[in-house]
Amino acid sequence: MDISTKTGKIIGVGLGPGNPDLMSVRADRLIRNARYIAFFRKAGKLGQARKIVEGMLGSDVVEYAMEYPVTTEVHFSDPHYNQILSRFYENCAKHLSELAAKGNDVIVLCEGDPFFYGSFMHIYTRLQPLKNIITQVVPAITGMSAAWSATLSPITWGDDVLCVLMATLAKDKLYKGIQNADAVVIMKIGRNLPKVYEVLKAAGKLERAFLVEYASCEQEKVIALKTLNSNDISTRKTPYFSIIILHGQGRRP
Amino acid sequence: MDISTKTGKIIGVGLGPGNPDLMSVRADRLIRNARYIAFFRKAGKLGQARKIVEGMLGSDVVEYAMEYPVTTEVHFSDPHYNQILSRFYENCAKHLSELAAKGNDVIVLCEGDPFFYGSFMHIYTRLQPLKNIITQVVPAITGMSAAWSATLSPITWGDDVLCVLMATLAKDKLYKGIQNADAVVIMKIGRNLPKVYEVLKAAGKLERAFLVEYASCEQEKVIALKTLNSNDISTRKTPYFSIIILHGQGRRP
Repeated sequence: MDISTKTGKIIGVGLGPGNPDLMSVRADRLIRNARYIAFFRKAGKLGQARKIVEGMLGSDVVEYAMEYPVTTEVHFSDPHYNQILSRFYENCAKHLSELAAKGNDVIVLCEGDPFFYGSFMHIYTRLQPLKNIITQVVPAITGMSAAWSATLSPITWGDDVLCVLMATLAKDKLYKGIQNADAVVIMKIGRNLPKVYEVLKAAGKLERAFLVEYASCEQEKVIALKTLNSNDISTRKTPYFSIIILHGQGRRP
Repeated sequence: MDISTKTGKIIGVGLGPGNPDLMSVRADRLIRNARYIAFFRKAGKLGQARKIVEGMLGSDVVEYAMEYPVTTEVHFSDPHYNQILSRFYENCAKHLSELAAKGNDVIVLCEGDPFFYGSFMHIYTRLQPLKNIITQVVPAITGMSAAWSATLSPITWGDDVLCVLMATLAKDKLYKGIQNADAVVIMKIGRNLPKVYEVLKAAGKLERAFLVEYASCEQEKVIALKTLNSNDISTRKTPYFSIIILHGQGRRP
């Protein structure tokens, strides 16, 4: 095979929680040497993943911004939402596979860890059946690791059971998940904060809960939820990627 | 304050899953510049954490090996086990705080993420009350992130509930945790493999379970549990830090 027509790789590279210093050595190297990068973003925004790598890219890098066609305007229970997103991911996968077919390695920038509730997964599963395309993934520090580190207290001890929940879940599912675990992480807080606050209160766990915004970044903030009242909660602007942490209390010598 | 007598910091640095290329940029820098390092190990062994940083240390580095006084000879339900371990961690914390009091920064090498089921936590909580000592933690890629990445399949989709369980738990607790979640990670497999296999079979989840040994390292191995029979399971030598993965099947456009 002629080297010039060798198929390139598509590599989903986890960027970690947001601080570039917390990227893996491998991610750092791949990004600094990249010729082609791709990343998701909201239309009209620079994009969080792209912001993290600012200052790290070569001058000749080719950028491909994959702009979400919908965010919150259509609810995910709407079948139309699924159709729109599905077509979007197919187009992204097609564009990336064409770049790779021409012999280019493409680095897909992924916030957090690519296989942990990430958007890259939707491209990855569409690329996997294509036998001529090599896809790889570089794991990363999750946002939740940065969040519990920010609280300055360990998340799990001994045999603690850890449950990871999305704040987008219905109240009863959140309640059940919280009750069945020793340590709890609740992700995607954003405008779900009032709902989660209510569930934590009902479960008697408000005293132990911490809200972490911008974990690992300059604007990092850790707030004990018990210090906020209902009015604070209903008026607070909390970023979507905020995380609530309930530490386990397990066995320790 | 005289600079020469300024108190040093004690930094628990997560090394990640085992491949040095998956350390964070910050961890890599701290370790390469370290004057004092400390790490846990079994008596008579080099130690896994120490092995990971082989070739990265300066020639003048001072090493402090913290050797576990007991491993499996005494069961953790034995109160004597707790006493022995508690004294051990106190001695380690004392030695580290003395080094720091003399103005030395000490890097404590931690496998995985320091605040996620790690031994460093036991030192950290003993150092935290000492007001003159500054302790810090550097989060890292968890072993479970490397494990699900090794399976080449995403762990969680959409609103999937993820439950993290220790294989050291009793059967009923393992069963309950597996039934209450969409995606499951079971850690500390080792000689608990037959028990976990039995529980997964009873829960009807054997078909979906993957055993990952040495995730991210050269000897990495991914085995679909359904391909092993009871005899394979009872005779198999599985490393303690092996991980079982059950992928979530949640919403995907």
